[in-house]
Amino acid sequence: MKLSARNLIPGTVKEVTIGLVNAEVVIEIAPGVEMVSVITKNSVERMGIKVGDKVDAMVKATSVMIAKD
Amino acid sequence: MKLSARNLIPGTVKEVTIGLVNAEVVIEIAPGVEMVSVITKNSVERMGIKVGDKVDAMVKATSVMIAKD
Amino acid sequence: MKLSARNLIPGTVKEVTIGLVNAEVVIEIAPGVEMVSVITKNSVERMGIKVGDKVDAMVKATSVMIAKD
Amino acid sequence: MKLSARNLIPGTVKEVTIGLVNAEVVIEIAPGVEMVSVITKNSVERMGIKVGDKVDAMVKATSVMIAKD
Amino acid sequence: MKLSARNLIPGTVKEVTIGLVNAEVVIEIAPGVEMVSVITKNSVERMGIKVGDKVDAMVKATSVMIAKD
Amino acid sequence: MKLSARNLIPGTVKEVTIGLVNAEVVIEIAPGVEMVSVITKNSVERMGIKVGDKVDAMVKATSVMIAKD
Repeated sequence: MKLSARNLIPGTVKEVTIGLVNAEVVIEIAPGVEMVSVITKNSVERMGIKVGDKVDAMVKATSVMIAKD
Repeated sequence: MKLSARNLIPGTVKEVTIGLVNAEVVIEIAPGVEMVSVITKNSVERMGIKVGDKVDAMVKATSVMIAKD
Repeated sequence: MKLSARNLIPGTVKEVTIGLVNAEVVIEIAPGVEMVSVITKNSVERMGIKVGDKVDAMVKATSVMIAKD
Repeated sequence: MKLSARNLIPGTVKEVTIGLVNAEVVIEIAPGVEMVSVITKNSVERMGIKVGDKVDAMVKATSVMIAKD
Repeated sequence: MKLSARNLIPGTVKEVTIGLVNAEVVIEIAPGVEMVSVITKNSVERMGIKVGDKVDAMVKATSVMIAKD
Repeated sequence: MKLSARNLIPGTVKEVTIGLVNAEVVIEIAPGVEMVSVITKNSVERMGIKVGDKVDAMVKATSVMIAKD
């Protein structure tokens, strides 16, 4: 499957916090570099996401902002 | 300045493509790992973004999806 | 590949408009019902998206709002 | 009222799950085809959204990605 | 029409810049306070948006981040 | 720090509602004009956001839609 989202960043799930509707998933994409995703609780359950999983953090390019000192 | 966006990923600007309204900025966040951002042309000019700049790719957690094989 | 995005709506590409950075893709998801996507020009070219293609319109649940009369 | 969001897809509310801050709303947009929205609990209550309601799922074009096999 | 988007901020259109796919619209929401929107060129034309128009800048709550010194 | 987000709107925190994963923050940006943000509970705690704080509501231009009567 090809996806238009330009950012597919491989990593390992470090932490999963489940809420009533949403869930927070922390993904280590490089030693000491984490990405945090908020997806629905349903998605976490449907995809069986758990600590240690190899996943991709996926982000549409229009959702990526830039900060510069 | 503290920012609520949970994802601030340091990298180096590799490429800048300017359109009439938007611009695409490619940021290398690790050897061979790139993030692509689409921000407005105005922001690229206002921030003086150019190849070689040290920047952070910034993403709100609710914009990060997960893909899993 | 499993995706956390909750909305994967099958349809057929009706129209593609290419800009300098972005591109607009119109997808018919049911007779007379269209979805419009703006993705990067690069993605359209990389994925070879053209009129007549069978695709899925993909939307994260947090990007879906509701209107009610 | 005219809206810039390009995607206004009519459907019927099938399910509402309320959390502490957010709520998940499942909308049937065609037989067997559902869209899932996550909006705030406040919006669900303010709009009186309940199962059986006729609503539109509203999505900005820049939030729509494309997947293609 | 009731909208789930929690942010509807009235203002006056100050500037419109049209690209091939997108358009940038600057809206003055208070003396000297502007909001910038990027919507599709099609939406600007469909809605007949022009300088001087009274409009609302509409933002989903999950798209609003917070910065604090 | 320079940010590509085009919308940085100063205001005062009026209300904070904490969920299991997310939190809702109401910001008064002008007398009687509020913006509502949904960010993660973690961000509210990390930034020490509380009623009375001076903050900026930050929004990427591509997340701003337009409504016009």
